[in-house]
Amino acid sequence: MIDIQNQRDDRNISIDNVGIKNLRYPVTVRDRRDGFQHTVATINMYVDLPHRIRGTHMSRFVEILHSLSPEVSLRTFSKTLEKMKDHLNAASAHVEMTFPYFIEKKAPVSRSPGLMDYTCRIIGSSDSNGKVDLISEVIVPISSVCPCSKEISDAGAHNQRGEVRLKTRFKKFIWLEDMIELVEASSSCDVYSVLKRVDEKEVTERGFTNAKFVEDVVRDIAKKLLSDNNITWFSVSAENFESIHNHSAYAHITRNKMESL
Amino acid sequence: MIDIQNQRDDRNISIDNVGIKNLRYPVTVRDRRDGFQHTVATINMYVDLPHRIRGTHMSRFVEILHSLSPEVSLRTFSKTLEKMKDHLNAASAHVEMTFPYFIEKKAPVSRSPGLMDYTCRIIGSSDSNGKVDLISEVIVPISSVCPCSKEISDAGAHNQRGEVRLKTRFKKFIWLEDMIELVEASSSCDVYSVLKRVDEKEVTERGFTNAKFVEDVVRDIAKKLLSDNNITWFSVSAENFESIHNHSAYAHITRNKMESL
Amino acid sequence: MIDIQNQRDDRNISIDNVGIKNLRYPVTVRDRRDGFQHTVATINMYVDLPHRIRGTHMSRFVEILHSLSPEVSLRTFSKTLEKMKDHLNAASAHVEMTFPYFIEKKAPVSRSPGLMDYTCRIIGSSDSNGKVDLISEVIVPISSVCPCSKEISDAGAHNQRGEVRLKTRFKKFIWLEDMIELVEASSSCDVYSVLKRVDEKEVTERGFTNAKFVEDVVRDIAKKLLSDNNITWFSVSAENFESIHNHSAYAHITRNKMESL
Amino acid sequence: MIDIQNQRDDRNISIDNVGIKNLRYPVTVRDRRDGFQHTVATINMYVDLPHRIRGTHMSRFVEILHSLSPEVSLRTFSKTLEKMKDHLNAASAHVEMTFPYFIEKKAPVSRSPGLMDYTCRIIGSSDSNGKVDLISEVIVPISSVCPCSKEISDAGAHNQRGEVRLKTRFKKFIWLEDMIELVEASSSCDVYSVLKRVDEKEVTERGFTNAKFVEDVVRDIAKKLLSDNNITWFSVSAENFESIHNHSAYAHITRNKMESL
Repeated sequence: MIDIQNQRDDRNISIDNVGIKNLRYPVTVRDRRDGFQHTVATINMYVDLPHRIRGTHMSRFVEILHSLSPEVSLRTFSKTLEKMKDHLNAASAHVEMTFPYFIEKKAPVSRSPGLMDYTCRIIGSSDSNGKVDLISEVIVPISSVCPCSKEISDAGAHNQRGEVRLKTRFKKFIWLEDMIELVEASSSCDVYSVLKRVDEKEVTERGFTNAKFVEDVVRDIAKKLLSDNNITWFSVSAENFESIHNHSAYAHITRNKMESL
Repeated sequence: MIDIQNQRDDRNISIDNVGIKNLRYPVTVRDRRDGFQHTVATINMYVDLPHRIRGTHMSRFVEILHSLSPEVSLRTFSKTLEKMKDHLNAASAHVEMTFPYFIEKKAPVSRSPGLMDYTCRIIGSSDSNGKVDLISEVIVPISSVCPCSKEISDAGAHNQRGEVRLKTRFKKFIWLEDMIELVEASSSCDVYSVLKRVDEKEVTERGFTNAKFVEDVVRDIAKKLLSDNNITWFSVSAENFESIHNHSAYAHITRNKMESL
Repeated sequence: MIDIQNQRDDRNISIDNVGIKNLRYPVTVRDRRDGFQHTVATINMYVDLPHRIRGTHMSRFVEILHSLSPEVSLRTFSKTLEKMKDHLNAASAHVEMTFPYFIEKKAPVSRSPGLMDYTCRIIGSSDSNGKVDLISEVIVPISSVCPCSKEISDAGAHNQRGEVRLKTRFKKFIWLEDMIELVEASSSCDVYSVLKRVDEKEVTERGFTNAKFVEDVVRDIAKKLLSDNNITWFSVSAENFESIHNHSAYAHITRNKMESL
Repeated sequence: MIDIQNQRDDRNISIDNVGIKNLRYPVTVRDRRDGFQHTVATINMYVDLPHRIRGTHMSRFVEILHSLSPEVSLRTFSKTLEKMKDHLNAASAHVEMTFPYFIEKKAPVSRSPGLMDYTCRIIGSSDSNGKVDLISEVIVPISSVCPCSKEISDAGAHNQRGEVRLKTRFKKFIWLEDMIELVEASSSCDVYSVLKRVDEKEVTERGFTNAKFVEDVVRDIAKKLLSDNNITWFSVSAENFESIHNHSAYAHITRNKMESL
């Protein structure tokens, strides 16, 4: 059977990334408390393609994934990337896995337990020199109370659900849980799946005490990351789904700490 | 050229709806203030198909739409439905048009002007007896302040953006603007695109004074619609994108006022 | 602490559905082959609210879910519905759970294994008489080849990915797998996660042999369901993401088999 | 009234981007054929914030937009960016506008007219030196026929809708229409809103003759852009919504032509 993909290509143009996108697959993720948890990832897997080859072998990407009976972890990403380069005769490889991630969180006063869901993403690349680059991302829902509204109003303050996206590069392994906790501690108040009335009183008052703009949220997160020696690069954004508007307020900071050395 | 669609079908199964879905098209919509406005609709158009015919003529749906250089209005929907039945030899026709709709709204104190965006939908059907059924829908962002949180907390109250979906059937023409205003008047506070500081103070305080659960919002809207003789049927839901949770609070009421006659 | 939700309401309007929407939660689902599988559901849970009570108790919905350490199954749905009515003092309850579901599927010639993902939904209601109504839904990607294009063209035929949504009511337990297989057998060709070249040849030729309009797909599914005594009601739609258009072709049939008795 | 936003900030962290996100607004866009067209944009507008200021003035973003009664055009973007820097006392400004864009396209044989919809985006930045950077993006639906499937199968070939995303930087003004036509000419076949049977035959046969992988599509586009002196940078990706899989095939090339000078 003829192998069209292996035909010689004369256009003299190499391709940066080629592969599969938006594949849903069940995965297990390393979990600080229980060892691992089951979830479902949306996965993109790409390799480079040299200028002289017409096409990559799309079926091999899913075969590699299936053979690994995928555990998603910063520790196993390098292996996956190497396997991709090997089976696809590629110089570089790139993988992105996005998945809901659950942490049991007790309500702050009643201690009633529930699972909070976060969206997490791990992005890994291996270049032609075998250098691996890993990025860990968490998307964390938060509560944010407007400092301006609080100050100028006779009572109350507008507040809303917000979403913080934090990506980091790091020297040694970092838990998704640690990144999530850092974000939550920088919000007006964190968000829960179960809150009884005693808890609702507590989170309302805590939020009101900690009124923060999106600017405050990204700065408070940035400040902690700038002083954390394990973090070499980060990108943090905060988006408030404003309760007084039908659009969002947004702030964003990226810092490469290696540049300043 | 053979006409496969017109082949006789032996399965003896008529089809309820067949046609095109998710077509984006520029439209003009009747507008209470300016006469009309330009927007972009996502359109579904279906007819029925008798059991003895294999397929409908998909291209005719877009031709009909194009020939009408579409004005979306409760007044012109009947014409579109008749044209579909005529050109497609169908006994019944169904159209759904969903579009962003803009209303100029001045900030409550500073009177600074801006455009508020709403998502609206018009749904029309014409049955085999020529009876036309029209539904008008508005999706309205609102601000909602939690009465429980306000009552039990020493200061503040959690609030958030919510979304009300209101569908109505009616005896005589009803403006989208009237439906939107009815919803906004039933919220803790309505939402604006531009708010200066004096306005932010006003909406914060107004919302705090009008604390409402999703239950309150749908009941207050239902109460007004139950006493409005022009409305024959309605379905209203309120969804709060809770600022203290990562899920929504939701309430829904449907009433057919013709049933009680 | 005052219980605002339990206040008496004077508007005299009962609420059809009130509760939580879009909660993500890890669940296990009954699985024909392995007993169960882990996945992540998006969950809506509602009860009714009598006219004289102001609000429901939102936190109890998540508590109930958490206490059940949720297994999603047609068998356990009744228990969940009863528990909701009980803990929330409600006359009726309604639950919707939507989740990706995976089935190992071997490529048709090479037998190379991979997991296919489907979106499934279970919808359950218990009314004030304790009557339980269950609906099982599968959303199945398919391949569809156009019979008209095949017939009139000198070579080839346009084809595309389509999506079939099938909901059923039934007398006795029905596997999601059975519903999925029924849909796949009614398509031009089913869809796989892994296909080697020998498989790609097979699915291309099989699809070309089985050219079908959306009308054919829903009729072929309807025909099988009409002759299946276990099915009491169904709703089936097929949507083709047309390769020659930027909109979809769509067909839909609903039949209540109890009406004809 | 106290101006919280103007408070001095001591965290010593400047913010890269702060402003509003996901604002829907009606706009007019420059149009090669008719001069301009009405559409609806989703708009992000950001400025930088110096380390010593606590917050930006969110309401001014919408005021600026409203005062411009927005025409979206590569020609007017510089003016918008300057106005933002001026009114917000900012060193840099950034705007992204995304909108559906319509082009009348006649069916290839019958000449039956219809409007094709494309999603377009204009991204503009002005840095602290007043240097303006503009990117024009088009998202173009295409039809793609698989060369491997065609070659190895006895009849037919799997094909599907695909989507090409092309971003360019350029020396002098470039029409969205020119970018769209370049992409469509590089596909297996372009996509139409209206196709009669004679047209369907034509596009089926044209697509079958021009079988292309995602790799071929991005290379053919890249080749044309590499030889176009007006283009200084481009990023092109092709994604096929595979008819034989439930995931996408994807290829991507970015080239900075200024780097090689």
